[in-house]
Amino acid sequence: MTIAIVGATGLVGRTMIQVLEERDIHVDRLVLLASKRTAGSEMMYKGEKYHVGELTERSFEGIDIALFSAGGSVSRMYAPIAAAAGCVVIDNSSTWRMDENVPLVVPEVNASDATSHHGIIANPNCSTIQLVVALKPLHDAFGLKRVLVSTYQSPSGAGQNGVDQLKTEEAGGTVSNGIAPFPIAHNTVFHQFAGDAAITEEEAKMQRETKRILHLEDLAIAVTCVRVPVLGGHGESVAVELDRVVTVDNVRAVLQTAPGIVLLDDPSANVYPTTQQAEGKDEVFVGRIRKDPSCENGILLWVVADNLRKGAATNAVQILESIVSHAH
Amino acid sequence: MTIAIVGATGLVGRTMIQVLEERDIHVDRLVLLASKRTAGSEMMYKGEKYHVGELTERSFEGIDIALFSAGGSVSRMYAPIAAAAGCVVIDNSSTWRMDENVPLVVPEVNASDATSHHGIIANPNCSTIQLVVALKPLHDAFGLKRVLVSTYQSPSGAGQNGVDQLKTEEAGGTVSNGIAPFPIAHNTVFHQFAGDAAITEEEAKMQRETKRILHLEDLAIAVTCVRVPVLGGHGESVAVELDRVVTVDNVRAVLQTAPGIVLLDDPSANVYPTTQQAEGKDEVFVGRIRKDPSCENGILLWVVADNLRKGAATNAVQILESIVSHAH
Repeated sequence: MTIAIVGATGLVGRTMIQVLEERDIHVDRLVLLASKRTAGSEMMYKGEKYHVGELTERSFEGIDIALFSAGGSVSRMYAPIAAAAGCVVIDNSSTWRMDENVPLVVPEVNASDATSHHGIIANPNCSTIQLVVALKPLHDAFGLKRVLVSTYQSPSGAGQNGVDQLKTEEAGGTVSNGIAPFPIAHNTVFHQFAGDAAITEEEAKMQRETKRILHLEDLAIAVTCVRVPVLGGHGESVAVELDRVVTVDNVRAVLQTAPGIVLLDDPSANVYPTTQQAEGKDEVFVGRIRKDPSCENGILLWVVADNLRKGAATNAVQILESIVSHAH
Repeated sequence: MTIAIVGATGLVGRTMIQVLEERDIHVDRLVLLASKRTAGSEMMYKGEKYHVGELTERSFEGIDIALFSAGGSVSRMYAPIAAAAGCVVIDNSSTWRMDENVPLVVPEVNASDATSHHGIIANPNCSTIQLVVALKPLHDAFGLKRVLVSTYQSPSGAGQNGVDQLKTEEAGGTVSNGIAPFPIAHNTVFHQFAGDAAITEEEAKMQRETKRILHLEDLAIAVTCVRVPVLGGHGESVAVELDRVVTVDNVRAVLQTAPGIVLLDDPSANVYPTTQQAEGKDEVFVGRIRKDPSCENGILLWVVADNLRKGAATNAVQILESIVSHAH
């Protein structure tokens, strides 16, 4: 199997290489691609040096699967070229996520959707992935009636630039063309607004992608996305209204055995997931499970994952694993 | 008028002195008090040096009003002593907040409650104050049905220790006896859990104090409080269900003229309140007002205030102003 990584030098691209290595994916040939700006550098995979080539229209000949994480405009232009060359693209940008010919996949939730692809499979938004991993088992067991989310998102969601800006500002510096119209160190800011709308692009993505992945087009969902100066992962404060009354023990029992979830939930021992603790891990961590005192059928949760791993690289590699295992 | 500040050397105590000076409160004599540990130091007020005396049982003779911010055990012991000496105590700790003989006051919301005191008036929890300033006009205009809040709180809520811990950790150091069982730099953590309960003390305070201040004992309210590594203020993502359908313009019109609120809400121009921007300001800032897409009568808001000022010192000084003006 020949695998290409497009955007190999970026924060998510580097994590993809690491996750491929850790999960011991069988790779006959690995092709690392990047824009002209960073092509020419060398990167390590399984102890070997790999040259990073420049992405061109000819890059995809002989490639079986390409993991894209090089931004929306690269995906828009090159994913169809790769697909036409017979390569299956797993794309981390938002470009194809709502295209009805492109499945949008979180393997724990809707792996079977991946089989109906036409050469491109979309990897969802980071904050969406961890949310649906937690929501899916709750929906199957109790029925989702309404979902309200407030997020606590790391600037690493904006890539290396976001991390660099945070560190520069914490050291007393300033950056031009930052990821927000305000400083991000010691601050809370919002993502970019969606055109002239009252919501941000991130909020719009979470709302529509969650419905699509869960196959619940009419799900009542409202999301407020906030960037906070954390590293390691995104946090989500989630209020879920269910179709029927449940106990906290009911919820724990369901999440305890759900795929991809680790429960960390013992308030009396100060056990709960933190965003920092998620760093470098592939699972979605859930804690702070309790009854919502404002709603009879409501429960409250705290959901955390490493946004570069389960929110991006790991989920893409899991999609790769699922289509490879399906092909065999 | 003779005013004492108990806990003058702490983060809130210092802010109280600053706010008294800025608001040009008429003070005939200012008495600064602290524990044995920090008594003896000198502090500035209106260009003059003031000696910080040690708090004792005799400290309140001849004092008209004492602003307390020295922690719960100091308030529990000394507030009754001060009240017995004829002094009116405005107490920033949580000790007396739910005592039915002690009014719990946010002047924009329930100033008239302050008049029924018996020597002690309680200043609410920081995150509660900014919330009720935003909720009260909405309740008066549209009726509150349900309130769901997720907070983004500065470690300065734990006083100077919290700020010092954040800065130490950001510089690569560690602290013993930190304000949370996890590092707070680049992380999201929860406040201390309330005994063996599933909620934190901060969440319990916000839920019960909000009901008491608004005189809505049956209000449906659920709160998740999170500490994030910000300075300058607390943020709150608030979902409000109202008794009737409203438009965003209805809500804006009400909040625009509400006391103590500054609207910063123009997404197309990237205008919204950030926690950092609230620093040093006395108002509550509201932005991100939009319809809740998950609920017909719902609106979403983002509420920010300087937790040391409106969340503590400024609110205490406003209570002082209100009882002084009532006395005249």
